[in-house]
Amino acid sequence: MRTLLLAASAALALALPLAAQEAAKPAALAPSEIVAAAPKADWVAIPAEDLLVMTLAPDAEGKPRTVVIQLMPAPFSQGWVHNIRLFARAKWYDGISVNRVQDNYVTQWGDPNYDNPEATGKPKPLPEGLKVMGEAEYTVSSFVSPGTPNRAERQQFATITGLLAAGVNVESLAALPEVEQAKTARSALADRYSLFSAFTQGWPFAGREEEFWPTHCYGMVGVGRNYSPDTGSGAELYTVIGHAPRHLDRNIALVGRVIEGMQHLSSLPRGSGDLGFYTAEEAGKRTPILSVRVASDLPAAEQPAFEYLSTESDTFATYAEAIANRRDPFFITPAGGADICNIRVPVRRVAD
Amino acid sequence: MRTLLLAASAALALALPLAAQEAAKPAALAPSEIVAAAPKADWVAIPAEDLLVMTLAPDAEGKPRTVVIQLMPAPFSQGWVHNIRLFARAKWYDGISVNRVQDNYVTQWGDPNYDNPEATGKPKPLPEGLKVMGEAEYTVSSFVSPGTPNRAERQQFATITGLLAAGVNVESLAALPEVEQAKTARSALADRYSLFSAFTQGWPFAGREEEFWPTHCYGMVGVGRNYSPDTGSGAELYTVIGHAPRHLDRNIALVGRVIEGMQHLSSLPRGSGDLGFYTAEEAGKRTPILSVRVASDLPAAEQPAFEYLSTESDTFATYAEAIANRRDPFFITPAGGADICNIRVPVRRVAD
Repeated sequence: MRTLLLAASAALALALPLAAQEAAKPAALAPSEIVAAAPKADWVAIPAEDLLVMTLAPDAEGKPRTVVIQLMPAPFSQGWVHNIRLFARAKWYDGISVNRVQDNYVTQWGDPNYDNPEATGKPKPLPEGLKVMGEAEYTVSSFVSPGTPNRAERQQFATITGLLAAGVNVESLAALPEVEQAKTARSALADRYSLFSAFTQGWPFAGREEEFWPTHCYGMVGVGRNYSPDTGSGAELYTVIGHAPRHLDRNIALVGRVIEGMQHLSSLPRGSGDLGFYTAEEAGKRTPILSVRVASDLPAAEQPAFEYLSTESDTFATYAEAIANRRDPFFITPAGGADICNIRVPVRRVAD
Repeated sequence: MRTLLLAASAALALALPLAAQEAAKPAALAPSEIVAAAPKADWVAIPAEDLLVMTLAPDAEGKPRTVVIQLMPAPFSQGWVHNIRLFARAKWYDGISVNRVQDNYVTQWGDPNYDNPEATGKPKPLPEGLKVMGEAEYTVSSFVSPGTPNRAERQQFATITGLLAAGVNVESLAALPEVEQAKTARSALADRYSLFSAFTQGWPFAGREEEFWPTHCYGMVGVGRNYSPDTGSGAELYTVIGHAPRHLDRNIALVGRVIEGMQHLSSLPRGSGDLGFYTAEEAGKRTPILSVRVASDLPAAEQPAFEYLSTESDTFATYAEAIANRRDPFFITPAGGADICNIRVPVRRVAD
């Protein structure tokens, strides 16, 4: 098994005459304008099998609330992703609720009687066929994934994009001796949580030596668990509603992200119990989850369709660089870099 | 004017036999437990003159909603802080509203008729005596501040704390030659937005060469403005309700942070207009602000009292290190570092 780029030379990647290096040139477009101008070919359809449609009870005004979650592709967290599809197909999630909303942290949903300090009944039995995952699966040591023939190029591209996001002018960097290139690249790609962070197949990830893992950014969906060695089944899920709790990386499985309807989870009333759980007196604040379906199981006319901006496209590199160095009219001082969690991978609904 | 530490030698700071270096030793306490065990002497009273009490209209259930904001001390943003006290004392904020809630970004309040794409009336006249601040005031070049006699020690302490937060074992570091110490320290203190980030007088700040500025973390309060050269008067304020938008650092004035009642601002319904403004049809969602008072102007019996954990205390260093390397029972893999915005300065209400 081969491993991703840091073991190889970052300098090699920099020597590539990628069109992405154009991105380092000044431009006055806002990141959103760069995305709006992306050619159709830069957008990648998300398989319906990777979309979960979660229907919450209507809001206080009677308006429907639908949340769409994109599940993560291989090589990350596929055992838990398998379980989540299984829970959805067993209709196990139907009738559960949002039980915990902790400000600047997470909104969590599951069986209100499972491992909840405020439980009032018996937990729901789990479906058959769940995989039991080990802690080693929180990370991957290699990006061997079927259907990704240009892996090497993608890995080199992740480096370029990461450097642009770190505010590095890759053209100037290419002029340095190879050893200096590698040192500068390593230093620029680091953040407080990893030796490097970048993007692959539409997802943010971080790495340290030969280990790689997805990152706990706003809107990411993870699997609640008990104390180690428990790793969670997928019955309890949460999404990040505050500053990225990156200390959870490598400690909990991430399985996806909310791509539509995030406000239905982020604007819920905070729970006043420990860890933001709703107390017994606040049980009325639990938001009922009416159903969760895998989009591919819905009738064709009801299937939502989404696409993401390829993180391997030149447009994405230009977008990341523009986020790191805002030059659109409101800004007077470009930051010179961007946190991985501030470079949101653009996702859009495809019109019918 | 002297400048803060990076111009001086970071190595010098490391040579100090600070008790804080104890913090690098393993401990199984959670960060919250470390704070709970802090001696009373480590807590610093917040002057009532630095507290704003903002009363929102009661919620849908008729429950009161109060938000307490701590204003920033010198040397940061004092012109805008002056204006904000002036607006509060002129009762100018009474009767304004929350007009914008953009998911994963900001909640903003002000005159609904001022520079609002959905305005329906004339803007409210501003009070007399407002200072007009320049863009140079977004940053400071020095920490000359009255009442801080131990500035040098505090600056050295900020370095130690920053290194602990970056996951650096300062005891091992002290064994390195001085040049290597300085290099390692510089590299460890950097993040994607600055050459270093640390804490002073209870506040997070970042720096680059000889410039320092407060950081846009969750719950921080800033001053809305128009296009440059406008820098905002303080009539329009916002707080961060998502992942830290650090690209706003050095582009907008930060003036304080929400220290109580954040959930009343973070869980409001998101606006569906441009930038999260409530549209004209959603005008009913604007949350009225009944009053904003400087706490020192309230009758003594109504004045809230708060204190923060001194960021110059050994307890704070231990706390920062524990956040960077979680060893409490839930965690299996310590992160090895922490983002400045994930090290929340502990603030608590003082019981009557």
